[in-house]
Amino acid sequence: GTGANNDLYINQAVVFIEDAIQYRSINHRVDSKSLWLYRWYYSRTCQWILSLTITLILALAFIEKPSSLTVTSDVRYRLPAWNPPCGLTESIELFCFLVFMVDVSVKSYLIGWEEFWKNKWLMAYILTLIVSITDWVVSLSFFCAEDVRIRRILRPFFLLQNSSMMKKTLKSINSTLPEMASVVLLLAVHLSLFTMFAMLLFARTKDGQQEKEWVRYFRNLPDSLTSLLVLLTTANNPDVMIPAYSKNRAYSIFFILFTVLGNLFLMNLLTAIIYNQFRGYLLKSVQSSLFRRRLGIRAAFEVLSSLKETPANAEQSHVSVGALLQVLQKVEMDSRCKQAIMRSLKMCSCDQLSAAQFQKLFEELDKDAIKQHPPSPEYQSRFMQKMQFAFGHPYFGYLGNVVALANIVSICVVLVLDADKQPSERDDFFLGAINCFFILYYVLEMLLKVLAMGLRRYLSYPSNRFDGLLTVILLILEIATFAEYGFPHPGWRPEFVGLLSLWDMVRLVNMLIVFRFLRIIPNMKFMALVVTTLLDLVKNLRAFAGILVVVFYAFAITGIMLFKGAVVPLGNVRAVLYFKEKRDFMALFSHFQADVIFCLLYLLSVNLICRWTKIYFVAWWLISSVIWVNLFVALLLENFIHKWDRRCHREPLSDIEYQRTVELMFRDVLEEPTEEELMDKLHQHPHLQLCR
Amino acid sequence: GTGANNDLYINQAVVFIEDAIQYRSINHRVDSKSLWLYRWYYSRTCQWILSLTITLILALAFIEKPSSLTVTSDVRYRLPAWNPPCGLTESIELFCFLVFMVDVSVKSYLIGWEEFWKNKWLMAYILTLIVSITDWVVSLSFFCAEDVRIRRILRPFFLLQNSSMMKKTLKSINSTLPEMASVVLLLAVHLSLFTMFAMLLFARTKDGQQEKEWVRYFRNLPDSLTSLLVLLTTANNPDVMIPAYSKNRAYSIFFILFTVLGNLFLMNLLTAIIYNQFRGYLLKSVQSSLFRRRLGIRAAFEVLSSLKETPANAEQSHVSVGALLQVLQKVEMDSRCKQAIMRSLKMCSCDQLSAAQFQKLFEELDKDAIKQHPPSPEYQSRFMQKMQFAFGHPYFGYLGNVVALANIVSICVVLVLDADKQPSERDDFFLGAINCFFILYYVLEMLLKVLAMGLRRYLSYPSNRFDGLLTVILLILEIATFAEYGFPHPGWRPEFVGLLSLWDMVRLVNMLIVFRFLRIIPNMKFMALVVTTLLDLVKNLRAFAGILVVVFYAFAITGIMLFKGAVVPLGNVRAVLYFKEKRDFMALFSHFQADVIFCLLYLLSVNLICRWTKIYFVAWWLISSVIWVNLFVALLLENFIHKWDRRCHREPLSDIEYQRTVELMFRDVLEEPTEEELMDKLHQHPHLQLCR
Repeated sequence: GTGANNDLYINQAVVFIEDAIQYRSINHRVDSKSLWLYRWYYSRTCQWILSLTITLILALAFIEKPSSLTVTSDVRYRLPAWNPPCGLTESIELFCFLVFMVDVSVKSYLIGWEEFWKNKWLMAYILTLIVSITDWVVSLSFFCAEDVRIRRILRPFFLLQNSSMMKKTLKSINSTLPEMASVVLLLAVHLSLFTMFAMLLFARTKDGQQEKEWVRYFRNLPDSLTSLLVLLTTANNPDVMIPAYSKNRAYSIFFILFTVLGNLFLMNLLTAIIYNQFRGYLLKSVQSSLFRRRLGIRAAFEVLSSLKETPANAEQSHVSVGALLQVLQKVEMDSRCKQAIMRSLKMCSCDQLSAAQFQKLFEELDKDAIKQHPPSPEYQSRFMQKMQFAFGHPYFGYLGNVVALANIVSICVVLVLDADKQPSERDDFFLGAINCFFILYYVLEMLLKVLAMGLRRYLSYPSNRFDGLLTVILLILEIATFAEYGFPHPGWRPEFVGLLSLWDMVRLVNMLIVFRFLRIIPNMKFMALVVTTLLDLVKNLRAFAGILVVVFYAFAITGIMLFKGAVVPLGNVRAVLYFKEKRDFMALFSHFQADVIFCLLYLLSVNLICRWTKIYFVAWWLISSVIWVNLFVALLLENFIHKWDRRCHREPLSDIEYQRTVELMFRDVLEEPTEEELMDKLHQHPHLQLCR
Repeated sequence: GTGANNDLYINQAVVFIEDAIQYRSINHRVDSKSLWLYRWYYSRTCQWILSLTITLILALAFIEKPSSLTVTSDVRYRLPAWNPPCGLTESIELFCFLVFMVDVSVKSYLIGWEEFWKNKWLMAYILTLIVSITDWVVSLSFFCAEDVRIRRILRPFFLLQNSSMMKKTLKSINSTLPEMASVVLLLAVHLSLFTMFAMLLFARTKDGQQEKEWVRYFRNLPDSLTSLLVLLTTANNPDVMIPAYSKNRAYSIFFILFTVLGNLFLMNLLTAIIYNQFRGYLLKSVQSSLFRRRLGIRAAFEVLSSLKETPANAEQSHVSVGALLQVLQKVEMDSRCKQAIMRSLKMCSCDQLSAAQFQKLFEELDKDAIKQHPPSPEYQSRFMQKMQFAFGHPYFGYLGNVVALANIVSICVVLVLDADKQPSERDDFFLGAINCFFILYYVLEMLLKVLAMGLRRYLSYPSNRFDGLLTVILLILEIATFAEYGFPHPGWRPEFVGLLSLWDMVRLVNMLIVFRFLRIIPNMKFMALVVTTLLDLVKNLRAFAGILVVVFYAFAITGIMLFKGAVVPLGNVRAVLYFKEKRDFMALFSHFQADVIFCLLYLLSVNLICRWTKIYFVAWWLISSVIWVNLFVALLLENFIHKWDRRCHREPLSDIEYQRTVELMFRDVLEEPTEEELMDKLHQHPHLQLCR
């Protein structure tokens, strides 16, 4: 009947508006049951369960067999790691697989079978699940004693496929690959030509001096290649040239030429290429998000307009205000936005909304949430008003900064004086006393500010929240110290009592004080700019970080599988690291980007002595250090330059605090999709039949 | 009289046009004698003498007293360096100062006294000369026994002031300094906060494991600062965290946080800032060059137009073709351009030229020199025509590349096989024989190509010139080898004869063959693009390189003066480098940018053990590694992205080879100066009085 139809249309509109809010695609089934399933699937609970499952399956690596998550990494001191019984991790895995199977079937059903065959990600998802479950069955039938577990390497895929941002980023990276491959090829040519030169230059001779170079670095082809590859990372830089240089200064020309060409030109060329590719990346992605939002709103308008009882009279379709109100009540969205839309609906006195008006109503979604600080309390007494003026004044804040600086300096002085003292000679009186004084001042400052601004206004500033929280923690720590160790006095060096020793308490307090000093940041203009840029960057980098986690996880698991057989019983990575002959190669790690995997390998206690080590680490170096860092630099350049330009344009607005999002950053340059584009896209919808 | 006046006008026009060609400012005196002096001063001979003098005074450092330019840098083996007698270098210096005095007085006279007082560079030049000469007098009166020679540090200024490009670049760098200083300040804050954290975290305890961290890296404030500073260069990266990490894995959070914030964010922020500042740098500089050119041409037009005998009849001023021809004959310029201008003058049948026509004539100067290859010879006989077709075909070139690759592979195989052999066991027969065969092929290839293309066409391609030159050298080397050592046969290992041993000859031939392999570059599209970008970059980088030389020279001389007293008799830098405790600090060098000064310090045999070392090297690291490299990256990004965009636009034109200059690269985006701007500037000329 018409009533059921009307209900369906309302529900469709609700889902389309929710799609628009979340920037989701609207290409899903739109019949009543599917809509219910769709809303259920994208409900917070379901998505939360899915995320939890992904986290769970990824976290399994930390307790599975070859891992060793202990406090110390030194095999001499650490206790044997807990070894879960066969079947424990496997049953957790089974649970995860079941959740994923539900996930994939719901997803496939919702987009419809026709679309399913076009969607490579979903096919890969199903394939991964099949391989994983097969591997799981094999594993159980061997009673967890089998060596190779392919499903572990496949795990990060579950993380990847669940994030549309990561998929988009991966696509972008993918399109840069041919050019990156060209540069990597150039690097390879560079490396191999110079290796041949090196082998000809530093051939074995009867000369003792030159022999050293040959023995250490250019003994044979693999050694020469490794030496020059490590030179490309600048890790063995002065060492490799010194024997030859001692013999004849002219040999340095070879090394300088190699590093200038390789490091300065080719490596930076990679940065240039990646930056060139990613220049428009952020803009494009924001543009497509905007398109999805407009499309969702338009789709909602179209289905609501077919709800109207008088279809014939109008050239243009219209939507009644009542229907929209009905929809709005059902939509899950930010309450501030909802209220704003309701308010403008009431202000517009019309009965019917055109497409443009409808679209305009929902522009509220794109708007900055302008944050207004609550007003200060108004005091009656003159004295209180004067107090309020004095302690609400910026100068009082500056005084607080000066006091914090004085505190830092005093801690620094004590640290320098106490640097060489034995723990038993140390006297904690002085630090205890001054910290007590300073913390009292901080508490007083906080209270006076609350008095002047009122608690709500005080808490509405992030810097105050940061400041207040640390002050309260400091106060609690100080009270705890006094409760356990009494008041400071000369020669205050009591024995260990309670949870932490006095010395640890004092250190903790000092660290918090140093940390609290960061409150000066918003007072320095350039620093504030840099910090906000960095925070923005962190938001935009989530997709990249996710991909890094995926790659890193796969590498770590591969590493475990590759190097498991090569564990030397008594040694550990550290022993290897100091193993002189291997030092140069280990220096590949010198670049911090390798740190992360280094730590994880440590964590998982993988021994590095293995013939596959070199290839494995060169691959890791290329991906993490060369490609990922360049991607990061490209994004940073993009973000920073954009921000910098904006700062110059919008100076006067800096008084109001914006909730900055990537979308807002590009507001000025975004293009609104045209009516035709939207309708074209709508008519291509696989499940929605529009009347016209 | 009018004749003398006419001569003056002609001469003025000649000089203005020459100014336009060389992109020089036209703000100089314009009377007859000054014009003669001006042309003399900017004549090739004079400028060549000036450059030679600057090179001479800079090169003095290599033979002056604390230097030790010997083949080996190892103090144990090297002979004592030659010590010039007192008065030798000083008299060379005196000659240089005299040249500079002439230079500065001519320059000052030519721009006129009024302008002189506004020109800070000239004032600084005079000041530098006065200080240098005073120092020179002091030096002589001590019979060269004095310690401090300020004039040596001032020397690079002479290089700096002689290049307008370097002065312009310096101005640009100067304008970036405030922002760079902000980031460096941020780095300093970052460093000091983390140093305090580190000192609190890794304080001395009774725990042996943690004690190690304290003893090695965080013993006191300077040690902690140094450790973290070196960590910022990633040089001591895994080492510094290992003792703490062994104790508790959680300590790694501190180090990861420090490197991520410092290295990944702040350091790259510096790149972003510098790139942001230099984005428009090249364009701006090319734009101002264009303005100078147009201004010079316009000035020539104006002086020539006042030459006309019929001043009253015309609204617009005109120049007679005869006068222009007279001027053109006197102007020193590229003969190709001159002929082209003459040709278009003859083609235009008019008698008088308007300003626009005049300007248009000289646009020939901006045009690409389109290089056309001479035609191939036309042979009569069918056989020769077939030969020509076969050997002129690109496939013949590809065959040559394949053969060169085969040669490289064969050398590589021999190298791998012979890698471990003692020099006495080595048999040169195999390499000698195959190289003989390959070189014969190369000679044949060259001859056949010359036959097919004709000598002139062959030589007009740079890749052929490269190829041919190397082939001829290889042939000569091979003939010399056979002449001295006979033809190769099994067990071919003759005794040392002549200049080079057979082994050295073979090595040299092999290296040349590897080098010759680079001829494949133009055949690979992406490689060709990269190589042309790099070559462009080298052209654009001259100014930056000059500034680097200036800074580097000043640093080296300061280093010599600072560390002279600290020479340890038996040690040398190498000994220090392996001096274990100092190793971490030396690792600052690990970054190749420090290599250059490292080599020069070696060259000048300066010993590094000194208390000032740290500050000196941190300053050097900041300037060379951080700032200069970022400047380089910024320029590379600018160049590459521009080129990349152009490549996409101009694909079809790639057949014709352009003589690419920076000016041409920006052709599409340059703005022509307007008539008003030019005339405004002309009326501001301090010495030229225009009639209207």
